Amino acid sequence: MEPAYFDNNATTPLDPSVMSSMRDAFDLWANPSSNNSNARKTALAISEARREIGKMFQVTSDDVIFTSGGTESNNWVIDSAVRLHKYNKRVGKPHVVTSSIEHPAIKEPLLRRLRDEEIDVTFVEVSPETGAVRVEDVLTAMTSSTCLVTIMLANNETGVLQPVAEIGVSVRSKFGNSVFIHTDAAQAVGKIAISIPDLHVDALTVVGHKFYGPRNGALVLRSRAEVALEPLFLGGNQEFGLRSGTENTPMVVGLGQAARVFNEASEEIEQRLRGTRDYFEAQLKECLGDEHKVHFGASPRLPNTSSVAFLNYEPHSCHLIENCKTFSASTGAACHKSECSPILTACGIPFSIASKTVRFSFGRSTTKEEVDLAVAELVSLTSRSKK
Amino acid sequence: MEPAYFDNNATTPLDPSVMSSMRDAFDLWANPSSNNSNARKTALAISEARREIGKMFQVTSDDVIFTSGGTESNNWVIDSAVRLHKYNKRVGKPHVVTSSIEHPAIKEPLLRRLRDEEIDVTFVEVSPETGAVRVEDVLTAMTSSTCLVTIMLANNETGVLQPVAEIGVSVRSKFGNSVFIHTDAAQAVGKIAISIPDLHVDALTVVGHKFYGPRNGALVLRSRAEVALEPLFLGGNQEFGLRSGTENTPMVVGLGQAARVFNEASEEIEQRLRGTRDYFEAQLKECLGDEHKVHFGASPRLPNTSSVAFLNYEPHSCHLIENCKTFSASTGAACHKSECSPILTACGIPFSIASKTVRFSFGRSTTKEEVDLAVAELVSLTSRSKK
Repeated sequence: MEPAYFDNNATTPLDPSVMSSMRDAFDLWANPSSNNSNARKTALAISEARREIGKMFQVTSDDVIFTSGGTESNNWVIDSAVRLHKYNKRVGKPHVVTSSIEHPAIKEPLLRRLRDEEIDVTFVEVSPETGAVRVEDVLTAMTSSTCLVTIMLANNETGVLQPVAEIGVSVRSKFGNSVFIHTDAAQAVGKIAISIPDLHVDALTVVGHKFYGPRNGALVLRSRAEVALEPLFLGGNQEFGLRSGTENTPMVVGLGQAARVFNEASEEIEQRLRGTRDYFEAQLKECLGDEHKVHFGASPRLPNTSSVAFLNYEPHSCHLIENCKTFSASTGAACHKSECSPILTACGIPFSIASKTVRFSFGRSTTKEEVDLAVAELVSLTSRSKK
Repeated sequence: MEPAYFDNNATTPLDPSVMSSMRDAFDLWANPSSNNSNARKTALAISEARREIGKMFQVTSDDVIFTSGGTESNNWVIDSAVRLHKYNKRVGKPHVVTSSIEHPAIKEPLLRRLRDEEIDVTFVEVSPETGAVRVEDVLTAMTSSTCLVTIMLANNETGVLQPVAEIGVSVRSKFGNSVFIHTDAAQAVGKIAISIPDLHVDALTVVGHKFYGPRNGALVLRSRAEVALEPLFLGGNQEFGLRSGTENTPMVVGLGQAARVFNEASEEIEQRLRGTRDYFEAQLKECLGDEHKVHFGASPRLPNTSSVAFLNYEPHSCHLIENCKTFSASTGAACHKSECSPILTACGIPFSIASKTVRFSFGRSTTKEEVDLAVAELVSLTSRSKK
């Protein structure tokens, strides 16, 4: 029997309807800017996908820019903010405010520019009580040279939701439109309903393969008319001149379909994920008691994510995962006894506990039976009383 | 009846075997860095595609970096060269040598950096006799601050092959490895056999959808071990740490299959394209004589491309295309009486002739019957004697 897949925060399979939409879209091979009947059908399919993504975030199709994925979207936002700082003749070196728990696609490009002395960066730490950044810490970090605030919407390992809406409101009210506010929503999209107007961000990163869509993504803007953004790629002027490159029609159509699936059943999807995760955590509580700890269980979290330390398991949690036959999951670190997830460390979790932690990220089709099997195996491998 | 498609330099349909390889690869949805059986199959499929692309250009799989397309590859090479100029503490402002007939995905990012005073650029003009840059002009343009030479392998509108191999040899022998030598091979790939060792370039841009592959691409290196390249995207360290972003498995597999199709029949493909194009030009010569002109017909050209001015056609060539029912093709310019292709102008073709020019780019499945119908229609619409 194949192990159950509890690693949906890494990547998800394609929704069957996404797969079939892409198969159909292989026939839409024309360049949508050309003047022929296939091109017109292609342009229509792309605009439908754009509308569906816009709907997902409560903005219009005009605010959706397709990209090759979250890594591009995140790298782009940083490049644009630095360019605009220069174009706008802002004082001082461009300054960026971010958190200490961002995805490498935010952290690494910032560190390179910091090393190259192109920018200053403040990595705001998260509270060890909640796993979330504090709004006041973000505000305190701001300077007159801050050109970008980028804080993820939900952490990929702990699932903890970050106070992006509060940050958006506060930064906007104190600094107006001089600061670009961005959130990497890679992990939140397709799991919870998201409204860009409610978040008060200028842009949000979308990644298809985290919500049963293809391996492309988007950068979605609050309002393309109001938000200043500099292209990363120049060339053919596609995507309103903001992202050149001939449109990847099948991927765009697939991303639109993934959004449609969520738009049509967002509440059921979130409830189902939450039901699975809560059931899993309840079972662990009943069977393992104080032999385990769910990190930040009291914080607002993604509905599908459970970061669990198995306190009485002596070796590293990567050995636990290797030994488990009923499911696959991840630890967020290379399998080495001196390593643990840098994200968990940044959340204030000591090495001794972080190194015993497994991330369970459930999917839309995870069953109660899969959870039962996993819990039974976890108990038999980690509980002193059961050994 | 659908018009014949003579616009294959804009984009091509998917080869049926590429389509089916991608359909199959939808099941390879795992993150190839994960540790499960689907991930291992995924990693294998990606490495097979990489090998096939390497084979296409006579390099190894280790030298192939998948990207989202030619626009990314081209923008990336410029970004990398400028960064390395700085890292290597080279004297002066980074200087780039390119041609006056490059694709916008080279020209536009260079113009932005020029405008931003980040770089100097020399746009080497092409000979109005041959439509190609002269090697000596490229060498004359070089300065002690030149960090990048980027000259396309074949022009998209005229089809004229540029002397990239000679440029590669000369620049390398005079300037060693201090200069990054790049060629945008978007139009040449899949039409003629290409060997990176023979071209003496450091990197070459590949675009899937120009040779019956998907809407992604690659940057292929002479030798990853020997060529210095700075990543454009940072994040998850995919593609040997050079291009982060979770691998787009179906697109990668499709690109590999498009390469396989060409690798297995490159001579036949080239001969077939050349046969079609030569037949077309012979028919035009017979029927239209001096009422038409094939631009740079005596230059080495792509085997599928014919840039033809219809000298006795009074209106703009875009009206000619609009009136033709038997085929679709392009003019390289917006349909406006005061506009003509800036590429043709840069090739020294006067407006009066450029504005009467149509680009015919034939495909692997273009038939003699399609050509006959097109020629008959063109003759009836453009020849004084036939009207």
